[in-house]
Amino acid sequence: MSIEPADVVVAVDLGGTALKGSLVSETGETVASATHPTPQQGIVDALLQLIEDLRREASARDRRVIAAAVVTPGMVDERTGEVAYASNLGWRDMPLLARLQERLPFPVAVGHDVRAAGLAERRLGVARGVDDFTLIPIGTGMAAALVSAEGPIRGALGAAGEIGHIPIVQDGEQCTCGQRGCLEVYVSGAGVARRYAARAGGSLSSREIVARLGSDPHADAVWDEATRALAQGLATVTLLLDPEVIVLGGGFSQAGSVLLDPVVQRLDEALAWRAAPRVMLSSLGGDAGRIGAAVLAFERVGRHDVPDTWVQQAAPVSLA
Amino acid sequence: MSIEPADVVVAVDLGGTALKGSLVSETGETVASATHPTPQQGIVDALLQLIEDLRREASARDRRVIAAAVVTPGMVDERTGEVAYASNLGWRDMPLLARLQERLPFPVAVGHDVRAAGLAERRLGVARGVDDFTLIPIGTGMAAALVSAEGPIRGALGAAGEIGHIPIVQDGEQCTCGQRGCLEVYVSGAGVARRYAARAGGSLSSREIVARLGSDPHADAVWDEATRALAQGLATVTLLLDPEVIVLGGGFSQAGSVLLDPVVQRLDEALAWRAAPRVMLSSLGGDAGRIGAAVLAFERVGRHDVPDTWVQQAAPVSLA
Repeated sequence: MSIEPADVVVAVDLGGTALKGSLVSETGETVASATHPTPQQGIVDALLQLIEDLRREASARDRRVIAAAVVTPGMVDERTGEVAYASNLGWRDMPLLARLQERLPFPVAVGHDVRAAGLAERRLGVARGVDDFTLIPIGTGMAAALVSAEGPIRGALGAAGEIGHIPIVQDGEQCTCGQRGCLEVYVSGAGVARRYAARAGGSLSSREIVARLGSDPHADAVWDEATRALAQGLATVTLLLDPEVIVLGGGFSQAGSVLLDPVVQRLDEALAWRAAPRVMLSSLGGDAGRIGAAVLAFERVGRHDVPDTWVQQAAPVSLA
Repeated sequence: MSIEPADVVVAVDLGGTALKGSLVSETGETVASATHPTPQQGIVDALLQLIEDLRREASARDRRVIAAAVVTPGMVDERTGEVAYASNLGWRDMPLLARLQERLPFPVAVGHDVRAAGLAERRLGVARGVDDFTLIPIGTGMAAALVSAEGPIRGALGAAGEIGHIPIVQDGEQCTCGQRGCLEVYVSGAGVARRYAARAGGSLSSREIVARLGSDPHADAVWDEATRALAQGLATVTLLLDPEVIVLGGGFSQAGSVLLDPVVQRLDEALAWRAAPRVMLSSLGGDAGRIGAAVLAFERVGRHDVPDTWVQQAAPVSLA
């Protein structure tokens, strides 16, 4: 299929709270966007409705939808398009690609949200052109896209990259996942907020806790433990996978230098006999998953070279 | 090049204490072997001498050497054949492939010892046919070959797989590497022996310590901490890489079920929300690196399908 300038793809980032969809042109332009709340039931129907809404919007603008891609959390097999398990969607063994493709007249791809974000970081973000890197979006929780020179690491069950649940502290604090001492107990929006509340009382967001650094000893203590735990997690990633670059993304990383500076210093200290990889903040922010979905959709119809112009289109996240 | 039945390759496993070389036929038969001590200086000359000795031995048996491969420890780039750093060989930026190839009349390959062992486990060992697996040889120290569906994970500097030095205990015991709380402090021949000596005095090998399990509380305590730390390390590998199989190799794993059983149980307990991968003991033992070198040598001349007969040739390790 030759791709005409008027051609667009539908890129959807399916999350536990919202379906975020966009029409994206070959030059990376976001032609239109729509966000729907994720329903408790009938998620696939809601996805089809969102895609249909965007397809109509494309028609109204004399654009033609040539492909779509949906990225989702959970244990996803990109090859079969099946979601083996996604706790916050209530899915088990969901044949998502088959369900979408049987209803849509253009080629569809299904991807994993964090791995798709990693693809976007490699093609368009701060990891541009880097073979071996790790993207770690940190939000309410945390996960990782592990990318080696051979490609993204998916794992046997499509469950690779669960860095939020690697054990950091032996017999550590209880995690919501049922394990103890997981990394995201100490380093995540929810974890930092909960640990602050346990020390100081009250109910502050991680952003509010960051704003109190230097003036609130409880905030300082919780943040100190967070950067320490994150540096330990990054040391583990470095020693196991030897990435050239580690990219921190997600809302939590918008704390900026108060996160990055101590983590870089502690990672250097933790690695006695080898150099640390570069640690950088994502420039794509919360859009990385949706941009990755657009890349997957273009790849689905044979376009594996995303144009350079996309870089300029991706607005940098403003850092605190 | 067509491969005749009389053709053999030279496979060399270069270690800090010995050069182990063999002539291996296409059917996996070890035609002849030679082991030299690793010299302090002139390791490349010693390698060339060993390869020449084996080539002469081949001629004497009417066999023709069609390729050679040398696998080494350290930070190895298989693509360029350079060893960036190998502490126990005293090498930095050693252009090993170039140095060997300029002196040898047949194609040469250079590989990483543990990744080559992983290749052997996948082709011929207990990980046969498995896409995603991790081989962890545990001896004096420990390392890992991480293999995903896309291929072995090498890392940006060829330094992936340093599982022995991932942090397991915050502010834990000093490791010889300069870091603290590394996995191999608790789980390795040297680590278990040192920790036993610190508790009980005396100087027992890890094998002797294993023999005292159930009758010596110090041995029980050190071993209990070892299996706990190893399970924690395997939980980290599982959550990050999602392997289908984890293979434990090396001399330490010859402890057999007293190692495997508690590690499997603790790994299950550590993973609250996902199934554990299968954990198995290597069937290739200390030969895995050399067998991997033979596979690399045959691949160097276009033979990518190692015959099934190799499986029977590889003698299983007897377990304690």
